[in-house]
Amino acid sequence: MIGPEDVRAAARVLDGVAHRTPVITSRTLGEGVLLKPENLQRGGAFKFRGAYNKISSLPHGARVVAFSSGNHAQAVALASSLIGADATILMPEDAPASKLAATRGYGANVVIYDRYTGDREAIAAALADELDAEIVPPYDDPLIAAGQGTAALELLEDAGVVDTLVVPVGGGGLIAGSATIAKSLGVRRVVGVEPAAGNDWQQSFAAGEIVAIDVTRTIADGLQTHAPGKLPWAVASQLVDEIVTVTDAQMVDAMRFAFERLKLVIEPSGAVGLAAVREGIVPTGSGPIGIVISGGNVAADRFAQLLAPSSA
Amino acid sequence: MIGPEDVRAAARVLDGVAHRTPVITSRTLGEGVLLKPENLQRGGAFKFRGAYNKISSLPHGARVVAFSSGNHAQAVALASSLIGADATILMPEDAPASKLAATRGYGANVVIYDRYTGDREAIAAALADELDAEIVPPYDDPLIAAGQGTAALELLEDAGVVDTLVVPVGGGGLIAGSATIAKSLGVRRVVGVEPAAGNDWQQSFAAGEIVAIDVTRTIADGLQTHAPGKLPWAVASQLVDEIVTVTDAQMVDAMRFAFERLKLVIEPSGAVGLAAVREGIVPTGSGPIGIVISGGNVAADRFAQLLAPSSA
Repeated sequence: MIGPEDVRAAARVLDGVAHRTPVITSRTLGEGVLLKPENLQRGGAFKFRGAYNKISSLPHGARVVAFSSGNHAQAVALASSLIGADATILMPEDAPASKLAATRGYGANVVIYDRYTGDREAIAAALADELDAEIVPPYDDPLIAAGQGTAALELLEDAGVVDTLVVPVGGGGLIAGSATIAKSLGVRRVVGVEPAAGNDWQQSFAAGEIVAIDVTRTIADGLQTHAPGKLPWAVASQLVDEIVTVTDAQMVDAMRFAFERLKLVIEPSGAVGLAAVREGIVPTGSGPIGIVISGGNVAADRFAQLLAPSSA
Repeated sequence: MIGPEDVRAAARVLDGVAHRTPVITSRTLGEGVLLKPENLQRGGAFKFRGAYNKISSLPHGARVVAFSSGNHAQAVALASSLIGADATILMPEDAPASKLAATRGYGANVVIYDRYTGDREAIAAALADELDAEIVPPYDDPLIAAGQGTAALELLEDAGVVDTLVVPVGGGGLIAGSATIAKSLGVRRVVGVEPAAGNDWQQSFAAGEIVAIDVTRTIADGLQTHAPGKLPWAVASQLVDEIVTVTDAQMVDAMRFAFERLKLVIEPSGAVGLAAVREGIVPTGSGPIGIVISGGNVAADRFAQLLAPSSA
């Protein structure tokens, strides 16, 4: 478990290292809607917070291993380069060339595996063993979850305590840290949002225990998890009030809105909270609503493709 | 003419009304490159600064008329709604539906004219006469130019005095105000950037007097002017060191870079300064460079179309 003091400790570690992203409002969205745009975070997503908090706790010059095809890979690579850790990232061979290049650009070693025949957790464990390295997990770790919660802490410090906090849920690191600090500060309601196509959290809440699902197709690649992480589940099942879902088409509408009205680029996974509020799935009207926009790592060509009528 | 005290007076008028947009840096762009993202300004462009400065100088409840198919229309409409002025905007019948809707959304009356048969200046003059209204020109006005210069003032206050300031040039209001304040604060070099397809400013500098050109095709619709404005020319011909040009393809590359690396939406006209620095047309290396990103009003579908290989 983690407590609010863990999130506050992470905030001290991240002070002057992570960007303190602004709080953004929009007349069109409504008076009390406050956005925390972590697409403007270093590495383009909130993931930098947890990765830096975790890696900075290791001995100087430590070796780390992570497996990810997405934002966690870039976060671990960037945090390692700042801290002086030696990072090896396990990525699938079909990862986008831009993500491979970005991860290498931050100075990490990239090891490629075959997504369809390789068991990435086993490969990562073997690699960590061989390198005498520490695995930096994407969400199932107290320092990671506490680090992610600093995004919510900043939002509540800068904009005041909101009535409702809306947070994307994938593995659950972000919502675990966010709910921990938010409830300690008096936020009435914390809502998680996931893709309708892969509602492992919603099913788990309904069952009262972790439910694993098959990974389904959604454009929200950052939220394509099989099941809630163990630590995130232990925290969030106590503190989170509700899990709602949005469709891929609703995410695209929210991305378009952010592009045209806010001039901000957000990735599909980052758009779920904004989509839920815009669609009325999370109702406004009972007080200020804070929405964490989790990231903006989407290639321009992919964005153009998502907007084309055939894919919406 | 205008002086630095006019820009400072405009800054006091705009304090608490215009957004103080942040100064943004990017490791990829290089250490000393500082961006002033006016795409995040109210109305999506720097134009709000001049329009508000001008309209707030008029008697309360004044009527104003403006002609524009672009950012100036939205700026006048928004500023008028905040000040309590009664705005009528003359727009061509082929203006994008989104811009018509945005202008009406700010509460302005929109009057449509035929771009091919109507003389918009004559129609605007007749309309202003009929309504007993004041015309708010897009750039040829001291209060407008002074207001636009506050973007540069904020950049230099927040990031320190730069060696070189890079500014888009269309009618010239932005560069006139920016050069006025920048040179007074010790900026060594002010460079204007315009589309290669319509280099009226570059030709005017070469001739030493205002040269008018036919309007040519460029994606930078905000910079498609026939000739420098009279007041902007009087100021900029004294204070601006050089005018350079960029191609449409270079603008698209800069828009893609801003999208993918900065997570920011910028319109073609807003991208010219970033393009000039990225392409080495404005050289780095002699000290910090400030770049004004003038706006971000581009529809998502238009952005997608611009990125498609056939249009680059």
